[in-house]
Amino acid sequence: MAVVVELEGERKRKPNIDGLQALVADDLKAVNEVIVQKMDSPVALIPQLAGHIVASGGKRLRPILTLAAARMCGYAGTRHIGLAACVEFIHTATLLHDDVVDASELRRGAASANALWGNQASVLVGDFLFSRAFQVMVADGSLPVLKILSDASATIAEGEVLQLMTTNDTQTGEGSYLDVIKAKTAELFAAACRIGAVVADRPRAEEDALYTYGLNLGIAFQLIDDVLDYSAEQAALGKTVGDDFKEGKLSLPVILAFHRGNDDERTFWRRTLEDLDQSDGDLDHAIALMQDHRALTDTVDRARHYGAVARDALGIFPSTPQKDALLELVDFCIDRAY
Amino acid sequence: MAVVVELEGERKRKPNIDGLQALVADDLKAVNEVIVQKMDSPVALIPQLAGHIVASGGKRLRPILTLAAARMCGYAGTRHIGLAACVEFIHTATLLHDDVVDASELRRGAASANALWGNQASVLVGDFLFSRAFQVMVADGSLPVLKILSDASATIAEGEVLQLMTTNDTQTGEGSYLDVIKAKTAELFAAACRIGAVVADRPRAEEDALYTYGLNLGIAFQLIDDVLDYSAEQAALGKTVGDDFKEGKLSLPVILAFHRGNDDERTFWRRTLEDLDQSDGDLDHAIALMQDHRALTDTVDRARHYGAVARDALGIFPSTPQKDALLELVDFCIDRAY
Repeated sequence: MAVVVELEGERKRKPNIDGLQALVADDLKAVNEVIVQKMDSPVALIPQLAGHIVASGGKRLRPILTLAAARMCGYAGTRHIGLAACVEFIHTATLLHDDVVDASELRRGAASANALWGNQASVLVGDFLFSRAFQVMVADGSLPVLKILSDASATIAEGEVLQLMTTNDTQTGEGSYLDVIKAKTAELFAAACRIGAVVADRPRAEEDALYTYGLNLGIAFQLIDDVLDYSAEQAALGKTVGDDFKEGKLSLPVILAFHRGNDDERTFWRRTLEDLDQSDGDLDHAIALMQDHRALTDTVDRARHYGAVARDALGIFPSTPQKDALLELVDFCIDRAY
Repeated sequence: MAVVVELEGERKRKPNIDGLQALVADDLKAVNEVIVQKMDSPVALIPQLAGHIVASGGKRLRPILTLAAARMCGYAGTRHIGLAACVEFIHTATLLHDDVVDASELRRGAASANALWGNQASVLVGDFLFSRAFQVMVADGSLPVLKILSDASATIAEGEVLQLMTTNDTQTGEGSYLDVIKAKTAELFAAACRIGAVVADRPRAEEDALYTYGLNLGIAFQLIDDVLDYSAEQAALGKTVGDDFKEGKLSLPVILAFHRGNDDERTFWRRTLEDLDQSDGDLDHAIALMQDHRALTDTVDRARHYGAVARDALGIFPSTPQKDALLELVDFCIDRAY
């Protein structure tokens, strides 16, 4: 009986990140202060442009992961603050370079930095933030942390190049797609979490568990992001509807629809995504094909799988408010699809 | 008498870097092997593109500085090999990003990477090389070296942004110009040299001396580079003649000619460099104005000043073949103008 009531209670309550945000609120405020302080430069354009992208917000998911992981590991110091800022700087640098690569005009609903200041400034300010992240890590002085984040940075760049090579290629399979999102998205989630165990000086098993949690959470997060790019509600999320389609990105929803489609459908995908020959109604037709083949719902199912792995990875940690919040974060990331 | 003979012998012999290259030949071979090995990636485009720019050569001046400085400091180990490769990776990453920023079609006389593979790949492979440099430094394990090169990287990015802001602005003065070239060129020369003293575990005074040598050598080098962009022989150096003029870059030869010019001349500079309204004969007219005002020869004189500071900085080191070669390098860099 109690179980049923609990389940009904659970069902009514949509997973959210309010609890997580409340737990890290003070730390996150300190992170934001470090971010503002460290992105300063006598070259005025740098804080202007960096400030634009940092302020345009996002949920600060990656630094929050570092903060919550460190506290879950019992860390009582302040080193995680600066390192969480490094994680956000690396993320911001990749966003700036991504927007140049994608020629995006919008980022989180606002004009992207490259649209406002040009590609040149976006490339160079990205380089600055990336260097600044390493300066802050060096000041922190932990070679293991430097290793984790330099490894993650190299993997992210590899993933971005791999994505560039698969863009507009309908031959891309689910395996290659997963390689791309692991590298370009999930590795930074994994690194952000793992650092929490490192600053807390926890055993290797906990480091590994947090890495696994972050990696699988990141994969699930990106899968849902790719679903949202084809779902109606996403306009509310401040992204341009159909961005991936317009660019000819081979995300999992497309890959599933392509593999499950007939010859006519594959001709459609090749024309729109390889030749980028698109006209009015093509995006709607693409979404209709995805629905016919359950490509979007099955992508969400794939995300659930990775979410389940992420949840189980935290099994070795004792129950704490941070652990509960990190578990709920998994559900929140997947639930965004609805 | 002996002195006179020596001077005449000196006069006949143009300064060159053959001696320096011979001294570091074995080490440089090892650096090239590390470069090839470390730029590898399962993502095929990365070694392809990185290989193109790394192989298209240049003189490997920056890694050579690390190698020669380390040996001059009596270092007998092998750590300087990997660190010299890091210096070259950081330099290569900035070249890749520079070419995107400048929209250059040529680099050292060959098609630039962005012309062959597109801006997107150049941005991302630059990011990869930059991350890889930090991975190699982390494996080396010296926080002081990591500090030197992360500081230099941040300064380079600042310098590049500053240059972006002064491009097409004829208000740029000699001071701002010097700030730009110190940051974007000379800091990496300085860092490359300084690392030599760090791996050799030499006292701070020697670190500082090598930093001063590198910084002033780098300034002289860039000043001469800017002269070469307006001098006829430079076609032989594999650069596009008049690149800086075409892009509206405010280099010192332009700044001197502008400041020394009359109203008509300033109108010419504003039209060609601010409005980028250029037609046939404008480049020739620009060079003629520079000659009228001795702007090119006086830029070489400025370079001589920095060269002299660089030479004196090495005064605290005992005489060695490496020291002699580093002294001759200063003359070689300046002598390129003739």
